[in-house]
Amino acid sequence: MSKAKKGIDIISIGDELLIGQVINTNASWMAEKLNNKALPVNRIIAIADTSVAIIEALHNSINSAKLVLITGGLGPTKDDLTKATICDFFDSKLVLNQKVKDHVEEFFAKRGRKLTESNRQQAMLPNNCEIITNSQGTAPGMYFIKNETHFVFMPGVPFEMKSIMTEWVIPYFSEFCNIKARAQKTVMTSGMGESFLADKISHWEDVLPENTKLAYLPSPGKVRLRLHVESENKESAEKQLEQHIQDLNLIIPELIYGYDDEPLEAVIGKLLKEKGKTIATAESCTGGMIAEKITSIAGSSNYFKGSIVAYANEIKSNLLNIDMAIIDEHGAVSEEVACLMANNVREIMQTDIAVSTTGIAGPDGGTDEKPVGTVWIGIATKERVFAKKYQFGNQRERNTNWTLQTALNMLRKEL
Amino acid sequence: MSKAKKGIDIISIGDELLIGQVINTNASWMAEKLNNKALPVNRIIAIADTSVAIIEALHNSINSAKLVLITGGLGPTKDDLTKATICDFFDSKLVLNQKVKDHVEEFFAKRGRKLTESNRQQAMLPNNCEIITNSQGTAPGMYFIKNETHFVFMPGVPFEMKSIMTEWVIPYFSEFCNIKARAQKTVMTSGMGESFLADKISHWEDVLPENTKLAYLPSPGKVRLRLHVESENKESAEKQLEQHIQDLNLIIPELIYGYDDEPLEAVIGKLLKEKGKTIATAESCTGGMIAEKITSIAGSSNYFKGSIVAYANEIKSNLLNIDMAIIDEHGAVSEEVACLMANNVREIMQTDIAVSTTGIAGPDGGTDEKPVGTVWIGIATKERVFAKKYQFGNQRERNTNWTLQTALNMLRKEL
Repeated sequence: MSKAKKGIDIISIGDELLIGQVINTNASWMAEKLNNKALPVNRIIAIADTSVAIIEALHNSINSAKLVLITGGLGPTKDDLTKATICDFFDSKLVLNQKVKDHVEEFFAKRGRKLTESNRQQAMLPNNCEIITNSQGTAPGMYFIKNETHFVFMPGVPFEMKSIMTEWVIPYFSEFCNIKARAQKTVMTSGMGESFLADKISHWEDVLPENTKLAYLPSPGKVRLRLHVESENKESAEKQLEQHIQDLNLIIPELIYGYDDEPLEAVIGKLLKEKGKTIATAESCTGGMIAEKITSIAGSSNYFKGSIVAYANEIKSNLLNIDMAIIDEHGAVSEEVACLMANNVREIMQTDIAVSTTGIAGPDGGTDEKPVGTVWIGIATKERVFAKKYQFGNQRERNTNWTLQTALNMLRKEL
Repeated sequence: MSKAKKGIDIISIGDELLIGQVINTNASWMAEKLNNKALPVNRIIAIADTSVAIIEALHNSINSAKLVLITGGLGPTKDDLTKATICDFFDSKLVLNQKVKDHVEEFFAKRGRKLTESNRQQAMLPNNCEIITNSQGTAPGMYFIKNETHFVFMPGVPFEMKSIMTEWVIPYFSEFCNIKARAQKTVMTSGMGESFLADKISHWEDVLPENTKLAYLPSPGKVRLRLHVESENKESAEKQLEQHIQDLNLIIPELIYGYDDEPLEAVIGKLLKEKGKTIATAESCTGGMIAEKITSIAGSSNYFKGSIVAYANEIKSNLLNIDMAIIDEHGAVSEEVACLMANNVREIMQTDIAVSTTGIAGPDGGTDEKPVGTVWIGIATKERVFAKKYQFGNQRERNTNWTLQTALNMLRKEL
């Protein structure tokens, strides 16, 4: 007797995933979009580009999942045996699909490119599936039903998969899975580490009811708190969730900067827009990372004027007008230089606020007095200029990420 | 009759993976390190933080894998039921481990922090496993053997997992799995899209022997070609691999910029160091991204002087000395402005080479004449200044990534 099938399995095909060459961002993106529509993902499974592995995974999922979403192995190049394997599993044979052939030809004609033989092969498709149009590329999606489990195959190219998911899969399956009503929200915090935060909110956490789940998700410079409430109906779940979050807000108001994975740079962007203020950055150890984050937000040209990345001391002196004598006396990684960097870039770019970073990211350059991980972050406004010292770890990438998040959080507080 | 167990399953525990809130970079990192030691990963499986899901995954893997590496669910906070579930599966009970208790206490004392109750709980461990020291944190690893399958549980915090993998798992299991001798190399190319590249090298690909596998891994601005050869012994596999790569080099020498996931910014860093040259960037649409990439390489302070991120036109004029009349006449996104940005930042920062970007990343700001995705990239050396126009897509993030990779590739060619 088999148990009831439920939920969704995501199967990602590709050797590159199993040797760590490619990170499975496709599956994360799919999971997020499905979760937004309350479509529950059971498992994400990455497997090899072999018939044996593909067949085994399909057999495994057909026993437990109601819907299986498979990506990868449908590109124009010769490493793709997915289609042949699918034919075995679903008792299909490959036939020429005229509509897809026309689409592929039109796709290339539009772009003024010549059709290749490998592109032509993409119109050979199983005879017993529904073909899903790929508006962004040439390999179409395929939809099968077997033993009451639904299977959708998509190409692995991210923006092609995304368009099939958005245009077809999500709308089609939105009404598909019956689940309990639930509400979910992630509280974004910055400024306190995981275990200290856990202690600080323990009396709140301890009284959360059975139907409520809390997860801590730490990363450099921030801890996300994901709250999940299940109830009889959506309205009741949402009401309970809001109450928990209100209570939490009374305990750690200064640590909460946003909700639902809103990044700090978006929060800062909103604050700047609201207040009609402009911003600039002067960066040494972050090398342009803060500017890049701020400009990753669409519409940032309304408030971001620019940045001076002053890696070399001569640039700190020539472009940021910092007296070389001050650098020599205090060192480039110092309160004085951090303050001058922030203050001067603000004056040069004529903005309302500015942030600066100067530190020793590593692996080299540390001293006994200033070990690797020493970072000064400066803030300048029309009213005041100040800098704070931090001691991060000994890994270059973690240090720059900590500096980035901490600088963004300082900016948020100052706005 | 069950088939022979072989290879490795990686199981990542965490609801955050199944709702797409966190990307599974842990599993990719582990897979890469295992692959470097020729330890073959069968599957990467992300599952929910529930007893049912954990037990099901362990049952599933015990039937097929020789080694199962599990991460997540061992942190100090209360969302962690992994340990209780493990006890069910391995018939264990939790007992106080004095050595771990001492380690946790010492860990906090060293950092001058107070021990919390949740930290204390981490010393409660199953009585029938080998405890693996976690030098970077407080939750130790656990090693069980059941039905001839080996299981290692590790915390999900990346740098703690990484230290247990590096210090214990990789050395311990390096001799563990018997596999064929093999050689593998990834050829990094930039400058031609996947299907055109496939056509260009098809006569080379078509004659690759049975024991050789080729995979195309495209991403914005580059296509990686992964070649994998299996043979009787390591030496023969490597020799054959080198021959294939030499042959490929004769067909597309100008497209190959490196091997084995070496990023373009590292290639450029090497070239600059070799030639004793220095570099600066002037960035508009990339917002500091090129500077950030260049400085992500340790030792980049030897050749990278700095960057002017000129997002606002007034910064292009005031800091990069570009006549406002030229911006008004040609527009900020133009050959003239791209050339002046590169030329002037090179003069201002007194470097040997400079690169500039100016474009319309989107979603707003496009016109009929210059739609979203229009980007000019400029290069300046002592000898010459030029700019090239590109037409990328309509997605902001893809556009900046394409611009970044294309600019880095132009720099590489010019060096």
